[in-house]
Amino acid sequence: MRLPAGFVASGVRSGVRKSRPDLALVVCEKGATAAALFTRNRFPAAPVVLSRAALRQSGGRVHAAVVNSGCANAITGREGAEAARRVRRRAAELVRCRPEEVFLASTGVIGVLLPDARIRAALPAAVARLSSGGLEAASHAILTTDVGPKVAAAGFRAGNKRGRVVGFAKGAGMIHPDMATMLAFILTDAAATPAYLKAALRRAADESFHAISVDGDTSTNDTVLLLASGHPAAPELDGDDDAADFERALTEVCRELAWKIVRDGEGAIRVMEVTIEGAASVREAKLAAHAVATSPLVKTALHGGDPNWGRILAAVGRSGARVAPARARLAVNGLCLVEGGTPTAYAEREAAKAFARERVPIAVHLGAGSASARILTSDLGHDYISLNADYRS
Amino acid sequence: MRLPAGFVASGVRSGVRKSRPDLALVVCEKGATAAALFTRNRFPAAPVVLSRAALRQSGGRVHAAVVNSGCANAITGREGAEAARRVRRRAAELVRCRPEEVFLASTGVIGVLLPDARIRAALPAAVARLSSGGLEAASHAILTTDVGPKVAAAGFRAGNKRGRVVGFAKGAGMIHPDMATMLAFILTDAAATPAYLKAALRRAADESFHAISVDGDTSTNDTVLLLASGHPAAPELDGDDDAADFERALTEVCRELAWKIVRDGEGAIRVMEVTIEGAASVREAKLAAHAVATSPLVKTALHGGDPNWGRILAAVGRSGARVAPARARLAVNGLCLVEGGTPTAYAEREAAKAFARERVPIAVHLGAGSASARILTSDLGHDYISLNADYRS
Repeated sequence: MRLPAGFVASGVRSGVRKSRPDLALVVCEKGATAAALFTRNRFPAAPVVLSRAALRQSGGRVHAAVVNSGCANAITGREGAEAARRVRRRAAELVRCRPEEVFLASTGVIGVLLPDARIRAALPAAVARLSSGGLEAASHAILTTDVGPKVAAAGFRAGNKRGRVVGFAKGAGMIHPDMATMLAFILTDAAATPAYLKAALRRAADESFHAISVDGDTSTNDTVLLLASGHPAAPELDGDDDAADFERALTEVCRELAWKIVRDGEGAIRVMEVTIEGAASVREAKLAAHAVATSPLVKTALHGGDPNWGRILAAVGRSGARVAPARARLAVNGLCLVEGGTPTAYAEREAAKAFARERVPIAVHLGAGSASARILTSDLGHDYISLNADYRS
Repeated sequence: MRLPAGFVASGVRSGVRKSRPDLALVVCEKGATAAALFTRNRFPAAPVVLSRAALRQSGGRVHAAVVNSGCANAITGREGAEAARRVRRRAAELVRCRPEEVFLASTGVIGVLLPDARIRAALPAAVARLSSGGLEAASHAILTTDVGPKVAAAGFRAGNKRGRVVGFAKGAGMIHPDMATMLAFILTDAAATPAYLKAALRRAADESFHAISVDGDTSTNDTVLLLASGHPAAPELDGDDDAADFERALTEVCRELAWKIVRDGEGAIRVMEVTIEGAASVREAKLAAHAVATSPLVKTALHGGDPNWGRILAAVGRSGARVAPARARLAVNGLCLVEGGTPTAYAEREAAKAFARERVPIAVHLGAGSASARILTSDLGHDYISLNADYRS
């Protein structure tokens, strides 16, 4: 798949990881406008701290993004910040921009200092390999133990011009989760201001990256970056009606990446789509959805394909969301199992079938209002334990 | 172990579970003063709803407690409430008290109606076997798949009299967790008002049952009941200085039961004692402790005995508690691994040894204030998955 006009990318081996590509480079030759969402973790990694400040200093302009896997450079103190700065300076020299126009992201083990000399030594090769066909190599180099690259694309129109949105991401949790920062990079050939990109990215993320849960852990390094190259052939977006189709495409790309992040874990065999309806407020709907999506009891039952809906309602009940038990309803894939707070006369075989699907849609009505929320979650199986119980050793 | 003076108990088979005792009866022949703590789950089980109301109606008096395992009688609507009432009426006839002086508790599968006819049919046998040596049988009948009974006892003095506190409990989570409501029954021969018992029980629970986490799920049936028989030979407590030693004994019993609940899960091989210090408030200290104690990443690393402290700080960082990363400190069993937000030059072998203990004490200083909190949690291993992925089928 080709990158949107105005972008080139590459992926190379730097030696941070033993024997696979671990360094991705994305360059917008004329400089892109940019917006980013960062982890809210109180221990943000060095690249997160640096890139957040850089976007402010550059007024939302990014010339290059440098992403490494294998080391998170998180909780590494002042030395970690300096290692990140050295990478940034070297990249800026090579692609000829100011250091604050280089965006950094890292993923890997926490508490290990970035071996920045290796990355700096590999940057010239990464620059040499930059090409408009470099998406495959870049999307591969950011992975840790993901089953495969996660890429999504969509086209859009504004006025009489057409544009493209292309994104790539790496997974969170389920597979080696503390290497498994969620990183996503979304590129478009449209022209747009950083302020508009930020607003559009927030809206799209609410429907996608913020509506998934693998294990409830939010990494020190989570980053979503949106870059717009402003290619002359592509639309100019200013947030009015013309941008509606762009936002649809952006949301579509984000949702597809989010789905792939949840689906593509080594241990994951099923995805549950939890919809909470009838909540007193959106906040409470999200609380209830989050409680279900992170409950180990719900996730182990999902792994076993066990129609154990009692665990789902028990999780809803402890979430803090108001519930009118006598009006509560629960359905799986359209089959109503609980109505008015009491089990229906459903056939156990039918319920078991619904819970054994690859995608298990669960709808819970709280009977307390009219707000709703939706979240995707994966199951919790033996591979998760095996991978996480002794991953560092 | 003998029950405190004034109490008799028994445990029998009613047939709710296939082939093991599943019905416990505790009777205070002269009626006991009582206080209870119930689950805050918004789907409280029928026995929880009924017993909460009964304590109000009786003015905090309990003559008998009837506890069944094998069926939670939760989310069973009006029929479930009526089944519970029928059990209560029959027990009241047999032990000759008012129905609201019978306290009910249940544990087992959610969404299944209580087979109350079996329980009613078994109650005469339970009454016939009541004895002051019945603690063993009663503490056994309330178990589900716990490794064994959980009993604790302590003596106390007030003035020139001596009294006893004896408690028994069943485990929460880790082992078939949705059968695994936490139930605890604590008996004393002291005399005390229901209001005083309530205050003392709240204080003791804050230090014990509220400071443990197995899988973060709070059941529809969780119940802690404290009964005081007011035996003439035992002290009379009125909440003044004389009660200090009673409260020490009560807290000791609650803490021992809580420890046994965390330790005694089929899958659990290690207990982590998470202490958060230097928080801006107690609320934030608890938030941080809870985030660590329920993180699947932390719990799987604990299972593997992996000194992966990055996961602990990442959980603290996403908890919502304020942190000053540059002042953060982390120690395991007294060995400092992170100081001033940066890893120390610790020996990996020493750290691995500390994480491989049966009891792993972790202290995290947030550098944001002076409040603290403490919580016990167990590890997350393969047995948890095996037991929970297909427990219903």
